[in-house]
Amino acid sequence: MYTLANPGAGQKSVELMRALVYHGPGKKSVDEHAMPKISSPSDAIVKMVKTTICGTDLHILKGDVATCEPGRILGHEGIGIVHEVGSAVAAFKTGDRVLVSCISACGTCEYCRRGIYSHCTTGGWILGNEIDGTQAEYVRTPHADTSLYKIPAGVDAEALVMLSDIFPTSFECGVLNGKVQPGNTVAIVGSGPIGLAALLTAQFYSPARIIMIDSDANRLAVAKKLGATDTIDNTDGKAAEKLMKLTDGRGVDTAIEAVGVPATFVLCEDIVAPGGMIANIGVHGEKVDLHLERLWSQNIAITTRLVDTAATPMLLRTVVSGKVDPKQLITHHFTFEHIMDAYETFGNAARTKALKVIIEF
Amino acid sequence: MYTLANPGAGQKSVELMRALVYHGPGKKSVDEHAMPKISSPSDAIVKMVKTTICGTDLHILKGDVATCEPGRILGHEGIGIVHEVGSAVAAFKTGDRVLVSCISACGTCEYCRRGIYSHCTTGGWILGNEIDGTQAEYVRTPHADTSLYKIPAGVDAEALVMLSDIFPTSFECGVLNGKVQPGNTVAIVGSGPIGLAALLTAQFYSPARIIMIDSDANRLAVAKKLGATDTIDNTDGKAAEKLMKLTDGRGVDTAIEAVGVPATFVLCEDIVAPGGMIANIGVHGEKVDLHLERLWSQNIAITTRLVDTAATPMLLRTVVSGKVDPKQLITHHFTFEHIMDAYETFGNAARTKALKVIIEF
Amino acid sequence: MYTLANPGAGQKSVELMRALVYHGPGKKSVDEHAMPKISSPSDAIVKMVKTTICGTDLHILKGDVATCEPGRILGHEGIGIVHEVGSAVAAFKTGDRVLVSCISACGTCEYCRRGIYSHCTTGGWILGNEIDGTQAEYVRTPHADTSLYKIPAGVDAEALVMLSDIFPTSFECGVLNGKVQPGNTVAIVGSGPIGLAALLTAQFYSPARIIMIDSDANRLAVAKKLGATDTIDNTDGKAAEKLMKLTDGRGVDTAIEAVGVPATFVLCEDIVAPGGMIANIGVHGEKVDLHLERLWSQNIAITTRLVDTAATPMLLRTVVSGKVDPKQLITHHFTFEHIMDAYETFGNAARTKALKVIIEF
Amino acid sequence: MYTLANPGAGQKSVELMRALVYHGPGKKSVDEHAMPKISSPSDAIVKMVKTTICGTDLHILKGDVATCEPGRILGHEGIGIVHEVGSAVAAFKTGDRVLVSCISACGTCEYCRRGIYSHCTTGGWILGNEIDGTQAEYVRTPHADTSLYKIPAGVDAEALVMLSDIFPTSFECGVLNGKVQPGNTVAIVGSGPIGLAALLTAQFYSPARIIMIDSDANRLAVAKKLGATDTIDNTDGKAAEKLMKLTDGRGVDTAIEAVGVPATFVLCEDIVAPGGMIANIGVHGEKVDLHLERLWSQNIAITTRLVDTAATPMLLRTVVSGKVDPKQLITHHFTFEHIMDAYETFGNAARTKALKVIIEF
Repeated sequence: MYTLANPGAGQKSVELMRALVYHGPGKKSVDEHAMPKISSPSDAIVKMVKTTICGTDLHILKGDVATCEPGRILGHEGIGIVHEVGSAVAAFKTGDRVLVSCISACGTCEYCRRGIYSHCTTGGWILGNEIDGTQAEYVRTPHADTSLYKIPAGVDAEALVMLSDIFPTSFECGVLNGKVQPGNTVAIVGSGPIGLAALLTAQFYSPARIIMIDSDANRLAVAKKLGATDTIDNTDGKAAEKLMKLTDGRGVDTAIEAVGVPATFVLCEDIVAPGGMIANIGVHGEKVDLHLERLWSQNIAITTRLVDTAATPMLLRTVVSGKVDPKQLITHHFTFEHIMDAYETFGNAARTKALKVIIEF
Repeated sequence: MYTLANPGAGQKSVELMRALVYHGPGKKSVDEHAMPKISSPSDAIVKMVKTTICGTDLHILKGDVATCEPGRILGHEGIGIVHEVGSAVAAFKTGDRVLVSCISACGTCEYCRRGIYSHCTTGGWILGNEIDGTQAEYVRTPHADTSLYKIPAGVDAEALVMLSDIFPTSFECGVLNGKVQPGNTVAIVGSGPIGLAALLTAQFYSPARIIMIDSDANRLAVAKKLGATDTIDNTDGKAAEKLMKLTDGRGVDTAIEAVGVPATFVLCEDIVAPGGMIANIGVHGEKVDLHLERLWSQNIAITTRLVDTAATPMLLRTVVSGKVDPKQLITHHFTFEHIMDAYETFGNAARTKALKVIIEF
Repeated sequence: MYTLANPGAGQKSVELMRALVYHGPGKKSVDEHAMPKISSPSDAIVKMVKTTICGTDLHILKGDVATCEPGRILGHEGIGIVHEVGSAVAAFKTGDRVLVSCISACGTCEYCRRGIYSHCTTGGWILGNEIDGTQAEYVRTPHADTSLYKIPAGVDAEALVMLSDIFPTSFECGVLNGKVQPGNTVAIVGSGPIGLAALLTAQFYSPARIIMIDSDANRLAVAKKLGATDTIDNTDGKAAEKLMKLTDGRGVDTAIEAVGVPATFVLCEDIVAPGGMIANIGVHGEKVDLHLERLWSQNIAITTRLVDTAATPMLLRTVVSGKVDPKQLITHHFTFEHIMDAYETFGNAARTKALKVIIEF
Repeated sequence: MYTLANPGAGQKSVELMRALVYHGPGKKSVDEHAMPKISSPSDAIVKMVKTTICGTDLHILKGDVATCEPGRILGHEGIGIVHEVGSAVAAFKTGDRVLVSCISACGTCEYCRRGIYSHCTTGGWILGNEIDGTQAEYVRTPHADTSLYKIPAGVDAEALVMLSDIFPTSFECGVLNGKVQPGNTVAIVGSGPIGLAALLTAQFYSPARIIMIDSDANRLAVAKKLGATDTIDNTDGKAAEKLMKLTDGRGVDTAIEAVGVPATFVLCEDIVAPGGMIANIGVHGEKVDLHLERLWSQNIAITTRLVDTAATPMLLRTVVSGKVDPKQLITHHFTFEHIMDAYETFGNAARTKALKVIIEF
């Protein structure tokens, strides 16, 4: 934060900060931008310490997210320090070290009362989408009491950047919705950051097998290191066939879709056992074929979910107690000065082998 | 049952009975057929008293059910009297009045132990499909201990014919899977016998609204009489629009699909509220479009299920205690002599206004 | 509300109202009391329209509730009109007709996020206990957004007084915790207002039998009228024996304790079937014997719960849709001038046959 | 098995075997005993390979188990080889290597259909109790299809002796009923074999903390080795106080009772947090005090359960996949010739440090 030097006559002094701003499809830049201000009693202003880039930011930059308009500061993840709080904020005060949730939740509307924070009538996924986000020196976080989390003492704060979005997303949409159980067989289709976070958090429930499916040999190798019992290279498109062989023709109890294209969803349909679950995490851009002519009698369930971050407190406890180490997904570090490089690296993951990149202020 | 008169030289005396036999697409006849015999210690032979015709029987007659081969006696519903039991049958004896479940379940395989009787490795829906069925004077019922139910004293037995298939199907696949709850809003797409049975059993959970959708004015009128709070005539294909108006743009907590064609499934996708359920009952012959480009973020679940009849004991208690009267779905009665007429009547429901037809032996 | 006439020199004008104030064990009076004021941005001030008396108020007056100190305005139930709101209240504005919940919930603490509003770290049951309550012309309601409910148009508002406490208490602690299911057998021990509210809301789930147990013939007669399938008079202390006879020695799937003394809890232990539930609603003043020497192997669950009012939105919908009529529990009406008579009537229920009494401002 | 040499005139040849027989309180001996025979079509005869001794066997020997009469062969655990099967046994044949479940379940009665195998109307815990058990060269196992489990290839069979009783008991009654969840805090009261099996299987769900409480320093040291995050020595009776300090006054989400005396159950009452679970595993010989005067408002649940062994297939998969190693509980080995020594060792566990002892035929 800094004050515009030498404001012209009649100009008010304006506090400025640096921010990564979306300027329409294909266009982004680091700009000087006005500082955010408290606009509701339940707001907080957080000084960002570390942030990251999400696959969704890339979607926005392609112009795929209609709700995000040019001029928007991107980013919905990160950790920081509370800079200022509104009069109704009870749980936080200036100086608190906090995790910023990607979901803003009022805690009181019909959906919030049901734990469906993602559909909060005055919140949901708005950060870096409908309001300015976290890829900036400061961010305004609405509904601060239900949308920030104190960083526990003694924990490696950088790891918690993974708890803004990717870990709750993979855990809630994939693992919880997929009802992963001890002794069960799980397939995760897609071994990118989201699939790998599902792999890590699925292990909370001790399934007998976790079979990772992808076409990128490097990512499958990472998956093996992070706990996959089996990997299937789908370069030849024969993953379903291979998986059925691996499972003696039985299929899987839980198929987690972590890509977001029709072919990977249909693959889940092909490998789910009777009585099983298909848990979709992927952000889909088009409809998919649902083969009800076969599945109507298979006693399966298919779930979709925008992350609610309702599980964030639970995830925090698993990190603090060492049950999982989210830092395993972090491959690159940049300072904010080099955020354009960070985008370049993250956006070319096949080549750079990037999973999650950290951007430090 | 009767014995073939004057068997030729060298012929054994053969006990015969009358049965409705499938002879390939479009062909059926009432034939003289050999009596069934106990072939496993857990079998029972049941003398049928009343049976009925299911929409699935019509599917078989169209040639749509590959597992059902010509020569098969049709039917998987009905009540009867135990005629003979195998040496391992513990719960039933000759003379017991019983309900025949459409699902045969061993009770011991992996699927049965999980309550997924429909996928019993030596059972499931086999009656009138892979083995001879109930549209005959006698039927062999495998796994009798887990597949027959004693008819309680004092209950109108005819009503229980509805508990062989249609009531557990609508209740398990529609109401239970759809998680109908007190105060919730439910839509049932399809007001045929299956949809109406869902309407009746959904009321066990006191939803605030049950909105029936169909294009047949008579069936909607029946629905209104049986407890629908609202009906929507979809003749103009604008059911989704009308429903959203009825619910102030909110949609429904539970959408039950009770038809089995792509358009009605997509209608369910169009009307389900965030956090809601789509419970499929319909038997589908082709794939459907799943609009994940919109639904991926809607926190919904879609379920499919072949009826398990796991809820049959619960349903029996609701009938005995007068919580529901399944006879409301019975519109016509025939003697077995006129079973071809029964098929004619049931197969032309739009004209005859038939819901379920009873065939008495 | 009115202003103190002729304040002495140097006195500020003080706004006063009438209120029922607790003055220590056995003592209460209608006093002039200072008007409540907004003290936190999330507070509202509600002008009361109707309130009622709870059994817990009688407990306080006996000196049994240590948290309630002399000088406290009693009452935690009622309907009113929003008079003023704090700056952070988003869901309500002056003039809104509202239901006041007996539980104040911040919506954001660990317990509130889990739906355990009763243990809200800055709320819970505080109204008419740790802070002034609703038996007054005005009341301050903390955490207004999560603790008030708009009164829907077209509904009889008086009925909703039952939704402040007694209905959610009986439904959540008794019916939901007791897992009442279609076709099941339920016993409710205690046919006072709480037991009767459990009887009414248990019917949302269509149990086959609801057996009410009490020693008051009048209350059992009311129970019969409100839907009990069986009643047992326990004047002779032989209720367990009678119930086992009624259920052919099987016992009940759900036993709801709605009295709060050792004998009635042990009765629940005596009648619960293997696999069954004991759901405690009663406020207990002493320990009870838990017969684990018999129950350890019976696969039962025992639940306790201070009402969370998490189910209040659901209950509102059941009332609006006519699934239940809470007014059936209202036996007497008083104006606030006669609140001492109201206490007299409610406190002598065996003689007056009072269930719930309404007090109107 | 062997034939009685030189039967006297008129005597039939009798096949005999060795067995550990209960002869009334305090009395047991290794006797020659007639071989078991198939008595129902669903029976199997299993030649035992390894068995073990359960705390319940010691209870029987004290005369505490009324259903077990003098003359009974003890034992309800072990692995063996199928020797003979009844005509209705479908899943097993002579020569199959099997695990014998402590619970016999018909799979078809009301309780079995609900997964409550422990209350099977013709089974339950009958082995070594109401019928002869597994501490013999041969045992008859009723309802073989639902009560035996094939030993998977490649698994160390001895480990599976722990899956007859102690693992499903601790897992079902303690871990599943206790709803152990990722990130939660669990206390296990009692660090004997049952408590330690609960400790091992609780880790399937990745709780943040598992606090073991006992008065035996050796057993606490074992607990630490097997995964306890904290141990509390309760020799001074101050475990509750210590635990509350360890948890910053919060208490535990799940308290598992694995002893079976009043003091340890009350300890669970003292340490459970609001919203928490008390899961009883202990076999209790007397009633306990339930402090409802405090707990009525704490939103807790208390569960009891006789093991159903419904989770045995799941547990088998966790062992096969290496998620848990049950052999960690085996401390001693004996041949059947020395079974009296095995009892001596197991019965003096404080001195011998015995957990589970294996007896080999």
